[in-house]
Amino acid sequence: MDIVESLRQILPVEQISTQPDELEVVSQDESTLPGVTPLAVVWALNADEISKIVKLCYENATPITTRGAGSALEGSTIPLENGIVLDLSRMNRITNFWPEDLQVKVEPGIIYDNLNDQLKRDGLFFPPSPGGSGDVATVGGMVSTNASGIYSVKYGGTREYVLALEVVTGTGEIIRLGNRAIKRSSGYSLVELIAGSEGTLAVISSITIKLAGLPEDRLQTAYKFKNETDAARAVSEMRRYGLDLAAIEFLDRRLMAALNQLKNYGLEEVPALFLEFHGPRPVLESNSELVESICFELGAEKLELADGQRPWEVRHDATDAVKHYKPGYSIIRNDVAFPISRLPEMVAYCHELSDQHDITMFTFGHVGLGLLHALMLARQDNKTEWNAAHDISNRIIEKTIELGGTISGEHGIGLGHKDLFAKEHGAAVELMRKIKRQFDPKNILNPGKIFDV
Amino acid sequence: MDIVESLRQILPVEQISTQPDELEVVSQDESTLPGVTPLAVVWALNADEISKIVKLCYENATPITTRGAGSALEGSTIPLENGIVLDLSRMNRITNFWPEDLQVKVEPGIIYDNLNDQLKRDGLFFPPSPGGSGDVATVGGMVSTNASGIYSVKYGGTREYVLALEVVTGTGEIIRLGNRAIKRSSGYSLVELIAGSEGTLAVISSITIKLAGLPEDRLQTAYKFKNETDAARAVSEMRRYGLDLAAIEFLDRRLMAALNQLKNYGLEEVPALFLEFHGPRPVLESNSELVESICFELGAEKLELADGQRPWEVRHDATDAVKHYKPGYSIIRNDVAFPISRLPEMVAYCHELSDQHDITMFTFGHVGLGLLHALMLARQDNKTEWNAAHDISNRIIEKTIELGGTISGEHGIGLGHKDLFAKEHGAAVELMRKIKRQFDPKNILNPGKIFDV
Repeated sequence: MDIVESLRQILPVEQISTQPDELEVVSQDESTLPGVTPLAVVWALNADEISKIVKLCYENATPITTRGAGSALEGSTIPLENGIVLDLSRMNRITNFWPEDLQVKVEPGIIYDNLNDQLKRDGLFFPPSPGGSGDVATVGGMVSTNASGIYSVKYGGTREYVLALEVVTGTGEIIRLGNRAIKRSSGYSLVELIAGSEGTLAVISSITIKLAGLPEDRLQTAYKFKNETDAARAVSEMRRYGLDLAAIEFLDRRLMAALNQLKNYGLEEVPALFLEFHGPRPVLESNSELVESICFELGAEKLELADGQRPWEVRHDATDAVKHYKPGYSIIRNDVAFPISRLPEMVAYCHELSDQHDITMFTFGHVGLGLLHALMLARQDNKTEWNAAHDISNRIIEKTIELGGTISGEHGIGLGHKDLFAKEHGAAVELMRKIKRQFDPKNILNPGKIFDV
Repeated sequence: MDIVESLRQILPVEQISTQPDELEVVSQDESTLPGVTPLAVVWALNADEISKIVKLCYENATPITTRGAGSALEGSTIPLENGIVLDLSRMNRITNFWPEDLQVKVEPGIIYDNLNDQLKRDGLFFPPSPGGSGDVATVGGMVSTNASGIYSVKYGGTREYVLALEVVTGTGEIIRLGNRAIKRSSGYSLVELIAGSEGTLAVISSITIKLAGLPEDRLQTAYKFKNETDAARAVSEMRRYGLDLAAIEFLDRRLMAALNQLKNYGLEEVPALFLEFHGPRPVLESNSELVESICFELGAEKLELADGQRPWEVRHDATDAVKHYKPGYSIIRNDVAFPISRLPEMVAYCHELSDQHDITMFTFGHVGLGLLHALMLARQDNKTEWNAAHDISNRIIEKTIELGGTISGEHGIGLGHKDLFAKEHGAAVELMRKIKRQFDPKNILNPGKIFDV
């Protein structure tokens, strides 16, 4: 009996499909990588079902690619053609809530924004917002890629919020990791090991996370700088003074130009920092005054718009500005992170490469964390252009590694940046392989992602 | 040739000793556990020497217990009689410093206070202060136990500060883990895995850590509560409002009595919270006002002392108050952590057990992190008393696990709490064993600590 038939025997009919339209949906993620059609898609509703499914696949050595919303950006959720997709989007409940401890236990398929909508009533939220995709991204996917977002400067990335996990290993065993203590020195940090492992070590069936109190108030400001060096220095100074900032977003001079093209903002085409403060009003006012004095001392000016428009409206238009800059072009993404002092050098290097190859590029990111996204525009049907953009991307990554940085600050490795992974990690990759074999001896959990076993 | 002779061949004479007085020093840590005399103590000066030593021990299957300052509290650095002690206290330099990135690279033997003295010039510090032992504890030891301290409420524990490590595995291979990016989604979190592994996975030869800016200003306050429930609720409320507190320390009513005995403070014998704020003056004043209103709403009063003494002087006397409470008694320690809402229940349970068995006990801790230390006084030569205290300790741990907490919040497992480790971690212990074998196939790195292989 083949694996699909075996799965049909253990699952209700509405929890398995081989329909072409449904397979089409799960064949891809949000990357530009080509999709792959799996043998079947199955929906699990609880850990026991996941365990049964994994056990069957273990017996048959069938690859399993676990999927939440499919909003991954590096192919982490693209399946194998001889494998199945394990879709957890129907496991979307809050199963426990301890408001007095600022903790919640959820199923992996719960959508980020839905979770926060439910927490709002109690004045709480789960902070590491996955950028603009909070309306689709699942908490399970966020844990799997150690996702972060604009507020991670203040609140940290997803990994720092995970207290406990229930997981199913590659043999189908259900194991509980961690507990509800928020500080621990008790054995190896397996919770942290699973977070960010992109579904290659275990399937996550339950997640206990810390929460934060909703900020009493918010304040947004923005400053324009003469150059990238001054902007980077401002960020260092803010961190050195221990100032409490919720978001520190950088937009390069080119993105300012794209914003002018999109909406005729009339912005000066120089780099800018967009800042957000969370807290009680008097606290955030004190903080923002101190930040302003740092910016002014570095020769920055307040970014002000005509007609009473607020500067953060500009920031929110950044993605659209890139998307609509050249109709018919696809976006090639980069997701590097490095020590903040290297920001001017990195931005200059990115601009130099894109000029050399005549590729349109914008750089921006959560620079409070040293994260920089270099977005390039290229046409898939123009091979020279398409390859040039990918070549530039690789050179940016190589430069990042030289500067002591990482290939991926928040998107994960998936298939997209696998080829340069060993360059970042060297001999440590072999240790990762050995660890993977302990969790997944037959290499059936999302095989081929991050590195080859 | 025996292992000691072999080591003498590869090490300069001043880097190996079998002198009884020197073996005596490294036979123990700061726990009350009995010391064990090793075959020899060796001092390494760099990663290559560590590698050579480990390779020799690997060939001879000789246990290695790595030691910094020996200030561990649970026997993590007590050696084996057929093993050697690898002392890293002579590897105590800062090897790189990037003040603009708030990062530093150090050798593992550098002492916490020495590091901070050197960073002070640049207005920076390494925050996770290991309680009162900062003048002896090494950064390597802090990483190995994932140490924390009173300021970890604001700044986090040691693990959150480690960006990169150079380690020597159990076969003598030198491997670099991590890099200088402060947010990463690139493969398995091996840096985090080594942090807290108590020397059982690898010997750490170099550590790159994040730093924080020295607070511009500090403010200390203290409040007395009618009972533990109100104190715990106050902590929840402060966290829910996202208030920026550097320290939230709890002292139970019994410790207040001990303080009165020590110095005749005339304190009301009710539980108290000691709070510290870091930041620019206007920010911390706003924060402390909000904290005060939370405390007052819960019926608390300001803790005020006669003669203009500052309440935090009382807090600093807590350890002495316990030490001198009953001359000739030893301290039996506990280091549990649990969800903050269970604080009243846990304190009541601790008091009930100690009353039942007529054992003197004090509870206090970094309650902002849910950490509670229960300190008992017992005489080593009074078997009934000594055993009763250990029995109480085990029951407190068991209760903690029931409440979703951990055996060790910040001291580590070592030998002291090994017997209850599986109760906390269940089937996950087998995964830890498997991981240990990948790093240390012959089980020569601090064997017998945390769990048995």
